[in-house]
Amino acid sequence: MFRIDLNCDLGESFGAYKVGLDEEILSFVTSANIACGFHAGDPSVMRKTVKLALENGVAIGAHPGLPDLIGFGRRNMNISAQEAYDMVVYQIGALYGFVKSEGAKMQHVKPHGALYNMAAKSKELSEAIAEAVYKVDPELVLFGLSGSELVYVGERIGLQTAHEVFADRTYQLDGSLTSRNQPDALIQTNKQVISHVKRIVKEGKVKSQQGVDISLKADTVCIHGDGAHALQYAKSIKESLEAAGISIKAFK
Amino acid sequence: MFRIDLNCDLGESFGAYKVGLDEEILSFVTSANIACGFHAGDPSVMRKTVKLALENGVAIGAHPGLPDLIGFGRRNMNISAQEAYDMVVYQIGALYGFVKSEGAKMQHVKPHGALYNMAAKSKELSEAIAEAVYKVDPELVLFGLSGSELVYVGERIGLQTAHEVFADRTYQLDGSLTSRNQPDALIQTNKQVISHVKRIVKEGKVKSQQGVDISLKADTVCIHGDGAHALQYAKSIKESLEAAGISIKAFK
Amino acid sequence: MFRIDLNCDLGESFGAYKVGLDEEILSFVTSANIACGFHAGDPSVMRKTVKLALENGVAIGAHPGLPDLIGFGRRNMNISAQEAYDMVVYQIGALYGFVKSEGAKMQHVKPHGALYNMAAKSKELSEAIAEAVYKVDPELVLFGLSGSELVYVGERIGLQTAHEVFADRTYQLDGSLTSRNQPDALIQTNKQVISHVKRIVKEGKVKSQQGVDISLKADTVCIHGDGAHALQYAKSIKESLEAAGISIKAFK
Amino acid sequence: MFRIDLNCDLGESFGAYKVGLDEEILSFVTSANIACGFHAGDPSVMRKTVKLALENGVAIGAHPGLPDLIGFGRRNMNISAQEAYDMVVYQIGALYGFVKSEGAKMQHVKPHGALYNMAAKSKELSEAIAEAVYKVDPELVLFGLSGSELVYVGERIGLQTAHEVFADRTYQLDGSLTSRNQPDALIQTNKQVISHVKRIVKEGKVKSQQGVDISLKADTVCIHGDGAHALQYAKSIKESLEAAGISIKAFK
Repeated sequence: MFRIDLNCDLGESFGAYKVGLDEEILSFVTSANIACGFHAGDPSVMRKTVKLALENGVAIGAHPGLPDLIGFGRRNMNISAQEAYDMVVYQIGALYGFVKSEGAKMQHVKPHGALYNMAAKSKELSEAIAEAVYKVDPELVLFGLSGSELVYVGERIGLQTAHEVFADRTYQLDGSLTSRNQPDALIQTNKQVISHVKRIVKEGKVKSQQGVDISLKADTVCIHGDGAHALQYAKSIKESLEAAGISIKAFK
Repeated sequence: MFRIDLNCDLGESFGAYKVGLDEEILSFVTSANIACGFHAGDPSVMRKTVKLALENGVAIGAHPGLPDLIGFGRRNMNISAQEAYDMVVYQIGALYGFVKSEGAKMQHVKPHGALYNMAAKSKELSEAIAEAVYKVDPELVLFGLSGSELVYVGERIGLQTAHEVFADRTYQLDGSLTSRNQPDALIQTNKQVISHVKRIVKEGKVKSQQGVDISLKADTVCIHGDGAHALQYAKSIKESLEAAGISIKAFK
Repeated sequence: MFRIDLNCDLGESFGAYKVGLDEEILSFVTSANIACGFHAGDPSVMRKTVKLALENGVAIGAHPGLPDLIGFGRRNMNISAQEAYDMVVYQIGALYGFVKSEGAKMQHVKPHGALYNMAAKSKELSEAIAEAVYKVDPELVLFGLSGSELVYVGERIGLQTAHEVFADRTYQLDGSLTSRNQPDALIQTNKQVISHVKRIVKEGKVKSQQGVDISLKADTVCIHGDGAHALQYAKSIKESLEAAGISIKAFK
Repeated sequence: MFRIDLNCDLGESFGAYKVGLDEEILSFVTSANIACGFHAGDPSVMRKTVKLALENGVAIGAHPGLPDLIGFGRRNMNISAQEAYDMVVYQIGALYGFVKSEGAKMQHVKPHGALYNMAAKSKELSEAIAEAVYKVDPELVLFGLSGSELVYVGERIGLQTAHEVFADRTYQLDGSLTSRNQPDALIQTNKQVISHVKRIVKEGKVKSQQGVDISLKADTVCIHGDGAHALQYAKSIKESLEAAGISIKAFK
């Protein structure tokens, strides 16, 4: 029996700025990565998003990012490992406040944007992030790019980890994502997305942009919560996977 | 046997900006109110301050403030009760991350600056803050101005509370602090400070600026951690109280 | 011959957050109030909005606000007059950078949100704001609530001022706006908005919510750039006024 | 006749945080680089620092930095050239507000910290920064690391430029500064600092850490305004240079 988690970045509104279809998308995913106020989100948005996730039975995760609101946490910053540790502890804690005050539990932590990408390739940053997660709560699951440094370091440190794949991104021969600068970074049609995800889940394989199959471990699939077709897209992924006999469940 | 807690605001450095004599002052107090990044403090400062407090056996509290770094949280802002609730949950949580990652426990929460002063007089804000504390952790102690709305609301909601008095501030007939705008707001000499504190602790009384004695409940005394004479001042208060047979212990 | 300026708040996007229909609304207004990064806006948004305004022949103004991005500058803050002066000088200057770099001129300054409302009733804040405008450039026009302290102080100090009325707001007997908390704060239909604006421009009168006509000086009319019907609404105001023989021109 | 400008980074206080000996150091320098609120400084600090510089007859420059208050603008960020352009225009403009409101003129612009260092090696960033300066005001002088990309790009674009050397830093064979990570990055004694500066000014040469003399153009020398010995150090540099017949004058 196949099983997969569907996760989505949520709670990215800020003050008067509303983005994402958080309320609707929660019907189609099983894990929510909630922004913690550094790259997006604010205390009120966090409270509301935690409540929405609970109402929908969706598992909650912290989505810590770089302190770069203007850049949405997508610009690499030359932070030290200690600074990475500190900002991750802070942001997990902040979300924990809302989770605890709603009488719930946090399932996981998934770094955001540039922090996620820098960690995927840096042992030092990965160790800092994994240690931050472990020390706040060793029961937390660490989500990271499938096959990345972050996931391996997390395992070594004693955390449960989830290898994450992306529903609409293509892959390179070495298992890395095709850069968004490249024209072929995104899988274009819904149909292709679905067969891409199904094959990863069932066979653990994907055809790289070099034309060769590569192995890819998938514990959780990231889908998008914004954009014109987000809802239709989320719905069709969920339904197609279920129709293919794959059970959609939160990681834990 | 008389007993009192001595508390101090700490962890108010930010990035490259260093303030306060945190390391030294921790020898003389029993509770530390640690800034949480809104009015002062940053993730690295919070980690260091939590560690320092633990090394000194000083009880740890969150010191949440208004989101006004430029104004050090001292300017009143017309926030809603819901916004107060949200920002307090967020900041307690953020500090909790560091406390938990060091394997420790948080003792209390004391709002900072304008948030503290606005809450002292507003039932609505006090309820929001007390509820935030209670929902994150009902074991936390709420520190508030002695005799203020915040303390009474906290008790009503089921929290342990600590009535706070100020070592170097004068009081009005109604039990409020003399405003800092007034020339007689501060008690000038160390000697006067000490007899002021001793009388409050032993007799529960203080002579108001109107010349009449008023009753004042004191569970904890706030002393300052900055300024030229902070250390000498803290040391002399601690030693004088002990010499007078008053036990200096953390609230809990 | 009647003449009026139509102004709109623009450049309120921030980083990844997009709001407003700036590009489209610029066809229907003659003055743009551009956010300066404190309550909304960022350097990139400011550059783009200045360019858009110039391309549309719309006069440019600075729209300085309180340093409260999370509250969109709408929450009163207890700032000093000196702080108001400083934040207005800073923000006018910042926008000036973009205006100058595009080889253009700035027409006016209109405080935003809580700063605008606090100034309308405070002589001290009004003096600080007016002095800031005057000292940066005495040729700038100060926009303020019609009949408010801000406009009178501006005139006294030697600035050109523009009395501003609101297209879709109702007024009280004393000339103040009906508070947004009240159910009758907004004028509901497009048709009512148009006859309201026409009467103010042509007769200098409006029927207050107390049923009595009051006099209201109008140099510029504020219309909204966001919301579902913003464009249709802006277009119909402009066309109706022109059809009524009123010339729509930037203030200066 | 030899002549040199002495410059210093100033106005780096923020809100309640005070750093630097701005008032005192202004007696010993001829150009002040004033922080503009992104990496340090705030509107009130900027106003005060502009006034202090004018009172001391010191030329004023903008010191724009990365939007990273917590990191004091010292952490590289992967910003685009367009973002660099926008943040420099914004910050020059903001300081211009204070300079203009005091009836003065701005002399120069010197990027801060990581922005300065990234620009020294990047043609693309240098072009963005130089263009920002030029478009706001082509009369402004661009300060950059002696011999760096920033200075050459500035000249090509038509700006006056000033090659900057550092009073207490050692140099590599290629004319770059010895990295602060290296033990020999700093010149240790006051005496060595003075002979180092004198030789650069008079001969245009410095002995590199590789033991070989290199040529170094010097229009302005950066000295520090903080640290225990800042004042003594600034004073001795100024007096020694003057005693050696070198005229200390602002660049322009």
